[in-house]
Order: sequence, then structure tokens, then C-alpha cells
Amino acid sequence: MPAPKYDVIAIGNAIVDVMAPCDDALIGQLGLNRGGMTLVDADGALSLYEAMGPAKEISGGSAANTLAGLAALGAKCAFIGQVAQDQLGEVFSHDIRAAGIDFATPARPGEPPTARCLIFVTPDGERTMNTFLGASQFLPPAALDEKAIADAAVLYLEGYLWDPEEPRSAMRRAIGVARDAGRKVAFTASESFVIERHGDDFRQLIAEGLIDILFVNEHELAALTGEADFEAGLAKLAPQLPVVVATRSAKGAVALAGGARAEVAAEPIDKVVDTTGAGDLFAAGFLSGHVKGESLASCLTRGAVCAAEVISHYGARPEADIKALVAARLG
Amino acid sequence: MPAPKYDVIAIGNAIVDVMAPCDDALIGQLGLNRGGMTLVDADGALSLYEAMGPAKEISGGSAANTLAGLAALGAKCAFIGQVAQDQLGEVFSHDIRAAGIDFATPARPGEPPTARCLIFVTPDGERTMNTFLGASQFLPPAALDEKAIADAAVLYLEGYLWDPEEPRSAMRRAIGVARDAGRKVAFTASESFVIERHGDDFRQLIAEGLIDILFVNEHELAALTGEADFEAGLAKLAPQLPVVVATRSAKGAVALAGGARAEVAAEPIDKVVDTTGAGDLFAAGFLSGHVKGESLASCLTRGAVCAAEVISHYGARPEADIKALVAARLG
Repeated sequence: MPAPKYDVIAIGNAIVDVMAPCDDALIGQLGLNRGGMTLVDADGALSLYEAMGPAKEISGGSAANTLAGLAALGAKCAFIGQVAQDQLGEVFSHDIRAAGIDFATPARPGEPPTARCLIFVTPDGERTMNTFLGASQFLPPAALDEKAIADAAVLYLEGYLWDPEEPRSAMRRAIGVARDAGRKVAFTASESFVIERHGDDFRQLIAEGLIDILFVNEHELAALTGEADFEAGLAKLAPQLPVVVATRSAKGAVALAGGARAEVAAEPIDKVVDTTGAGDLFAAGFLSGHVKGESLASCLTRGAVCAAEVISHYGARPEADIKALVAARLG
Repeated sequence: MPAPKYDVIAIGNAIVDVMAPCDDALIGQLGLNRGGMTLVDADGALSLYEAMGPAKEISGGSAANTLAGLAALGAKCAFIGQVAQDQLGEVFSHDIRAAGIDFATPARPGEPPTARCLIFVTPDGERTMNTFLGASQFLPPAALDEKAIADAAVLYLEGYLWDPEEPRSAMRRAIGVARDAGRKVAFTASESFVIERHGDDFRQLIAEGLIDILFVNEHELAALTGEADFEAGLAKLAPQLPVVVATRSAKGAVALAGGARAEVAAEPIDKVVDTTGAGDLFAAGFLSGHVKGESLASCLTRGAVCAAEVISHYGARPEADIKALVAARLG
């Protein structure tokens, strides 16, 4: 088999983040799901925006953030996701292409507009996300670039996008294309609510051997396995998958593959400014090592370095030279 | 006369800044006017955007930034400026209102879109601005809220907006309204090219006694007075105006009023991250003291503190609590 054109191709939400600092009182007043991701409709997004302070618009989207990290680390990447024909769609498209990522999904005309995520960042750096999915949830299976999927070493899928129907169909088809081409499939569970609503789908995909690399955090692991205890959850899940990566925020992360296990502590940082993108960038670091065939420990260290960088500033995509940071850390 | 409803009402460009770091080589390759502001058309903006790295969108506009500073310092403010009915217009409108500033100019339907300023920030923190004025240049005199203008202690005008014809007419009319109501008029020269193109207008306004407070930097002072020497320019200009404030970047600033003179050094800061908005926030600090009747020295110190805050981070509007910073500095 010839070397694939891409290291990683991802399917994910095409979102522009609208980010503003806020005090803890506002989270309570608005009744927000502190630290979580909540879907909101157009009216809900409008009223939250009105309650929000002066903001910044920065491209986001979980899998797109992961690709931005991978591209910064030197990986060849492509993205598939749905924007609308509007200014925020132009912003998202510009930013992902400017990061060196191929992005060819045609913008969708008419309503709804491009997805946005209203992110309230409290003084502790925790982000509370409220997502209006807009055009993003209408990614049709016909928008898949099947040739590109077949030509990528890893197909990376964002759990958030498993919720709406059209993208779920598209992702199922993409998994088939990747498998037929002998490629790996990586999945990030994204959020507990995704598991709560679609856990059976995920368990089925795992049982069918269609996921090679699964990224979960503690809550998602518990939701997926039904085991409240972290180690019990890992013990149940790990034998079912070639690679499981479980992140635990400040407690670091664990990876298990073929009976081997490695752990990494969180990288020390001066101040957590904004946790948005921490999991996304951890996945970026891990995958950047994985596609090079590095050890589990090395992949985890890469993940920890990238996550530490992204939580030290506003926005979910890397700003510092993470390639140099990783190189310095791995020695 | 009853106390005015507003401390400051401003007329200015309604712009969203599109900001990205860039290396010095790119400035040369693109043939940009390093450190300056250049007007570009829609095609020019598009090609520069394509050459730009991943960016952030943050509301800007010179006078709007000044109001954001004034509002953060506790002043009551209103803004008049033209956005289009599009997503960037919504962003600008949200951000200025979220800063506590009254903004009631109706959005303009159809083309052109809301103004944007493509800002390339080099490693030294210098910003190179390329502005597509879009809807902003079509602010009609009919959009003026004359009641609000008559009810503001100071009318603050942005020189940039003197260039396009419709806003210039609107500003001339606004000056008349303010004067008829016995209010002060403050003007920022904005950029040397504005003086080069419209210097006669400014000199005429000054000669007619229609400007009370003028903000200039060294280059604008030279262009306005024809004196290359800073002190010679000041000596020529100061007797013609009640208050002149001349800023000199890292060399601090000078204010002259009624024969009195005060100077301030630039505040020391750790690192200049992005100079965008330095002059705008200096004006904010100065005016915040002026409307309270503080001494020239105190007004200048306020300006220096606010300018130092805004150049220590990305974006042209304050992020730290500048009211507290000013209070701490003034003691």
C-alpha cells in the first residue's frame, strides 16, 4: 500500500467560538451547565449572547482544533465539516486553511447560519460551552470526500457530531470507506451526554471492531462502561479496543494498548487561563506520536504538552510553537 | 444647563478587527505599510486575508475603542457608527453594547458588508493595519442622534472617518449640534494620511474655534503644522486650541492647555504584545480625567496607564480592570 496522502482526516463540527470572560455569579444567574457543553437553539443562543460581555471570535470545533494541533506538529491533515455561506463560515474556512489543513466541504447556502459556540470563561479558567449547531448538523453523506478518507492513515471522528442525524449517517459511511481502504478509525467521545444518548451505537461500533483508538475522559468512560470507578471502567473497556486513551484533566492521562499501559501527569503551567480545547489538543499530541509509531508514553507526553499550551491562553487552538515545545520535552 | 446624559458621545468607524501574528518577512512580501493604516478595497482585503495566518476577530474602530476605555473607567458613553446587517455587524453591535455603551445607529441593509481591519502583528508587537471600510463609510447625516449629541459633555470625532464623504458631512453637522448645545468637541487626527488629504479642513475647523481638544501623534502634528520638529509643531499648534494632547509612543505624551504644559512618560510594561489601540486608549484615559475636571498631569497619567494595559495583550479594547489600575496609579 502506498504511503497515505494524509496522516489524519477528521469529520467534525465547523464552529466559531464566541468567547468572553465572566464571573461565577453569571453562570448561576443564567442557569448554565458549568464546565459542560450544552446545545442551544437559535433563540437560546441569542439570549445568551445578549447576556455575555464583550467577546472574541476564534475558530473552534473539537476535531478541527485537534487537526490544528496536528498540523502545527507537522502532520498532514484534512477536515470535513459543514459551514454556511456567511461571514462566520468564511472565518472558520480561512482559519483552518491558514493552519495548513485541506478543507474542501462546500459551504451550505441559506439558513441556518454557521455554528457558533458561546463560551463563558470563569476566573478559574473553566469554560462553559453553549453550542448553536446551525449548518454544522446538516453535513450530508454526499459531502464526504471518500477518496481523501481512503487516503488518510487515520480517520478521526468527533462524538459531538454523532448526535445529529445527517452527520451520523455521514460518519457511518466514512468508517466503511476507511475500513475498506485498510485505515484506522479514531473516535473521541466528546461529552457524557453523547454517550448517554448514543452509548449503544458506540458499544456496537466497538463490538464490531470498527474503532481502533478511543479518546474518553473520566465521565465518558463511566457513561460508556457503566463503571463509576475509573480503573474498573478501564479494565472493562481496554480489552475491547486496540488503543484507549483516558484523560483526567489535572490528574493526567492513561493509555492502554494490547495489554500495555502508560500514564502521564499533567504538565505544570503557571495559570489555567481557559480550558477550552484541552482534550482536543491532548488528542492532537497523542495522535501526532501515534502516526509516527512512537511509544504510548511518548504519545501521552505529546498530548500533555499540547494540552498545557492550549489552556494557558484564550482559544482552543495552539498559539505557541507546540512542535518546538514537544521536541524540547521529548529531548 | 442640566447635567448632560453622556460624558462622551463618539462618531467613528464601526469595525471588527481581524488579527493575526505574522513574521517580519510577510510584511515585506505583501508590501504592507509597516506600523501604518492603509485603506484597501474588497478585493485587496480578500487577498490579504488569504495571506494571513489563523486569526481572531475582536471588535475595534478607533473611537469605539476609546469609548470602550471610557466606559470601563466609569464614563457614560454613546456611539454613532455604521454597521451592515450581517454577522460582523452583529459582533460589533454586541461588543459595544456589552461594554455598557449606548449604540442605536440602525444597521445598513445590503452591500457593502461591515467594515473589517486586517491587522498583522509582528513579533515586536507593532500592528500593521489594512482597513476595508465597507458599510462604515456610508454613515449618513440622517443617522445622527442629534438629541444624544446635544446631551453629551464631549463630542469625540475620529479623523479616519473624515475621509469618506457621507460621514464627513455627518460629522460637520454633529459639530454644529454640539456647539449649539454648548458642548465641547474633541478630535483625534488618527493618521498622517488623513491630515495629508484633509489638513485644510482641520486647520479651518481649528481656526473657527470648533475643536476644543485635539489628539495628535508626532507624525500627525508634523503634517498638521508643517513643522518637522516636535516642539516647534507644539509651539505653533497649542495657542490655537484650548487643549492639545500629543502622544509619542514609548516617549510618553505632552498636553498643553491655556499656556500650561504637562508631560508623562510611557508606563513601563513587561512586553509589548500588540500596539493596536494604544492611541485610542490613551485618549480614553485622558478624556476620563478631563470630563471630571482633573489636572492635565492626572489626565495624562490616566492615558498612559490605559495605553499600557491595551498594548500588553491582543486586541484594541481593555481586558484588565483599568479603573482599578488608574485608581492605584493616581493613589
